[in-house]
Amino acid sequence: MPKDLNKLHRAFNPRCVAVVGDKVEPHFSWLRTQSTFQGKLYSIQINPEYIQRIEAMGIKNYTSLLQIEEPIDLVIVSVPRAVAMTVLDDCIAKGVAAVHFYTSGFGETGTEEGREMEQLIVDKANGAGLNLIGPNCMGIFNPKLGIRQNERQYSGWAGPVGFISQSGTHADTFSMEGHIYDVDINKSVSFGNGTVLDSPDYLEYFGQDPEIKFIGMYLEGVRKGARFLSVLREVAARKPVVIWKGGQTEVGARAIASHTGSLAGPHAVWEAAVRQCGALAVDNLEELVDTMNGLIHLPPVRGDRVVLAGGSGGQSVAVADAFVKAGLSVPPLSQESYDNLETFFSLVGAGYRNPVDPGSNRAQFGRILDVLEQDTNTDNLVLVTWPGVWEHPPGFKESLIKSAKAIKKRAAKPVLVIMPHLSTPDEVRQTGDVRREFLEAGIPAFPTFERGARALRNVLDFYRLRALRGD
Amino acid sequence: MPKDLNKLHRAFNPRCVAVVGDKVEPHFSWLRTQSTFQGKLYSIQINPEYIQRIEAMGIKNYTSLLQIEEPIDLVIVSVPRAVAMTVLDDCIAKGVAAVHFYTSGFGETGTEEGREMEQLIVDKANGAGLNLIGPNCMGIFNPKLGIRQNERQYSGWAGPVGFISQSGTHADTFSMEGHIYDVDINKSVSFGNGTVLDSPDYLEYFGQDPEIKFIGMYLEGVRKGARFLSVLREVAARKPVVIWKGGQTEVGARAIASHTGSLAGPHAVWEAAVRQCGALAVDNLEELVDTMNGLIHLPPVRGDRVVLAGGSGGQSVAVADAFVKAGLSVPPLSQESYDNLETFFSLVGAGYRNPVDPGSNRAQFGRILDVLEQDTNTDNLVLVTWPGVWEHPPGFKESLIKSAKAIKKRAAKPVLVIMPHLSTPDEVRQTGDVRREFLEAGIPAFPTFERGARALRNVLDFYRLRALRGD
Repeated sequence: MPKDLNKLHRAFNPRCVAVVGDKVEPHFSWLRTQSTFQGKLYSIQINPEYIQRIEAMGIKNYTSLLQIEEPIDLVIVSVPRAVAMTVLDDCIAKGVAAVHFYTSGFGETGTEEGREMEQLIVDKANGAGLNLIGPNCMGIFNPKLGIRQNERQYSGWAGPVGFISQSGTHADTFSMEGHIYDVDINKSVSFGNGTVLDSPDYLEYFGQDPEIKFIGMYLEGVRKGARFLSVLREVAARKPVVIWKGGQTEVGARAIASHTGSLAGPHAVWEAAVRQCGALAVDNLEELVDTMNGLIHLPPVRGDRVVLAGGSGGQSVAVADAFVKAGLSVPPLSQESYDNLETFFSLVGAGYRNPVDPGSNRAQFGRILDVLEQDTNTDNLVLVTWPGVWEHPPGFKESLIKSAKAIKKRAAKPVLVIMPHLSTPDEVRQTGDVRREFLEAGIPAFPTFERGARALRNVLDFYRLRALRGD
Repeated sequence: MPKDLNKLHRAFNPRCVAVVGDKVEPHFSWLRTQSTFQGKLYSIQINPEYIQRIEAMGIKNYTSLLQIEEPIDLVIVSVPRAVAMTVLDDCIAKGVAAVHFYTSGFGETGTEEGREMEQLIVDKANGAGLNLIGPNCMGIFNPKLGIRQNERQYSGWAGPVGFISQSGTHADTFSMEGHIYDVDINKSVSFGNGTVLDSPDYLEYFGQDPEIKFIGMYLEGVRKGARFLSVLREVAARKPVVIWKGGQTEVGARAIASHTGSLAGPHAVWEAAVRQCGALAVDNLEELVDTMNGLIHLPPVRGDRVVLAGGSGGQSVAVADAFVKAGLSVPPLSQESYDNLETFFSLVGAGYRNPVDPGSNRAQFGRILDVLEQDTNTDNLVLVTWPGVWEHPPGFKESLIKSAKAIKKRAAKPVLVIMPHLSTPDEVRQTGDVRREFLEAGIPAFPTFERGARALRNVLDFYRLRALRGD
């Protein structure tokens, strides 16, 4: 049944939201999470003590949805499973645009009782044409409007990413870890058991949303494979889509059964089908964040030849191994580049074959980058830098950033930076500051050689898939 | 030629160290780096302006090594290549125990001139029986005595790890990143071109050093394969040895040529040979740190069956996929465990097949861990926790740590924890605090599902290799 995308649009861009059954444990978290919401927020609660505390938070409470006079775009339901049906009846009577069931205890329990109750609410919602998100999920994140999945998420602005997730934790982690790399959410949905509304519905809607330029997904299973692939093919022709599918192993698939009750098919078949639709398949959350980061911030990647520059000798070996293992090529530079480098590059404690280890030539790193950017034998420029060298020579960090920004301005080839760093708060902070500078210049950053290599490879794959389709 | 291990012992445990040719650029870093040294530190410098500044740092300067009256255990040489031979002559005349050449510009430049100069110093050192470390390297780190490779390294105590590295950056990064996981250095050497003293010499010495219980290595090439493997077999029979070999690809091998001038052979052959000697081969710095972490902090790992507990639904899927992909097994628990869990575990928003997602049962996580520790169908207990749940319910973090500590005290099976976290300074700090608590209880921590899985698998491999040899 085609879903009513207008009602979905109201749910993702609500003007009026009601939270049903929020509780003191854990401290009215659904209402608090929506404290950033720009529209009208109401509570539905019948416990007098809770009502008192909710109203002390400045939120108007009603004892029934039906008492609210204005139209409701989204209802967030946090009641026990036993009351779910009653709330659903009220949502239908009120004619709300969509209802998000945080409530769990349905198909994912694997019990007959759970499955039966799920079927009851699904039949009722479908019969009434009600958009039901979930059950057993964290619902919608629209940072611009301040509708969130949890209290630590950001609000007040929006990025270009639509994220569709069958896991609330992964939706949260993707939004927060992605934010560090300017992979910012426009709209995200955690949809749990995916009963009434399923992944193809969200994908279709995100595909039509002009604010969403890139789509990421975490999926556990797909109920109607043909419809999913048909929507995916259609959307992936217009927007990059990157999919992390859980349950790549038999045990992962078993874990899925008790998480969202989905059925995971053979993973190799899945990957091939996704690629045929022009989307990318990735293996974990880090690769998902990194690949989106590359897609958003890199210009089109057209070739697999990479020049790697800036690491010490040992790092040069490690980064070369990582890029070649990821399926990229690290060829010698052009003779012209070598002739040019030879005029000023000292080989003492340094090397410029490719990778280029500047060593004692670090003061001339800007000049080196100039040559590498012009090199005709490589398609992409990868900088390697790390806190250990930022004060050697003093001011090196600043001059590196300045040179990289200058190069980027006239760069024909994609430029990215890899910044390995220690897992200490101080180096994480220092690296974060430098990452921000690079990002402002349009140079995305990656935290390990392997992750940077894999991301570049995936972005290259994306443009190759697109070229195959003749775009 | 067998090396004089007594002299090597003096070099690694020096009482008197001289730095030759330290410079104002970069701010007398070799002398400053040894400011933590417990023994006597002298400078050799002839530039009057430099001498003035060195003596202002409270360091006694001589204009020649030969003027120092007492025996010298280690000379650190930072002169330009052209003066290297003169300094070497002085070292021989003085009869020092060992000399470390930071000076580079030799075989690793790939030039005839560089190779010839290297041969000259090697021949001279060998002729005089002088232990030469390098050239082109960062030398010795003995934290207990305060001899260091750079200023950011720790001092004043020692761990159980000997580290042998052909890269100065990797030696530095391993020591610092390892320290975060209590993988602390006893003695480390960065040996660069490995001319007079090569990896088998350091390995032989570390094998005999009773303070060193675990050995890690970063190698680029091995000159005398037969001797290396014979020493490795002998040492690995007594101490765990983990080796990261750079140059796993052709381009990595090319980078090695200009880094230390070593020749890297086919990687598959290398890995097989290392395993036959009873050592472990790893692929990158993270895996090296994680594997050492597991070897140091886990009891013997005897089986591949793992119970995974504590993650949310989506995390349970991801961690199951990661462990199975690493070659471990995640079987159902024993019927007894299920019978026991059924008495109190609510399946609403939770699951206990394996992985065990506590969901709403988080307040009873201690009781759940009790059952899992006793489970007879699994050999290892892996906890999953992350900052996102540490305050849900309030005080959960403290009760989790308390339960884990209690379990660990009576645990028959290895217990480890995986703590995914955001790349923000704040979550890195929070996670670091919790990691310390777990480590104090003897529970090692890993930062991603994949890294934890790989580490456990490597430690299992180690004990399997050992069992094959009949230990």
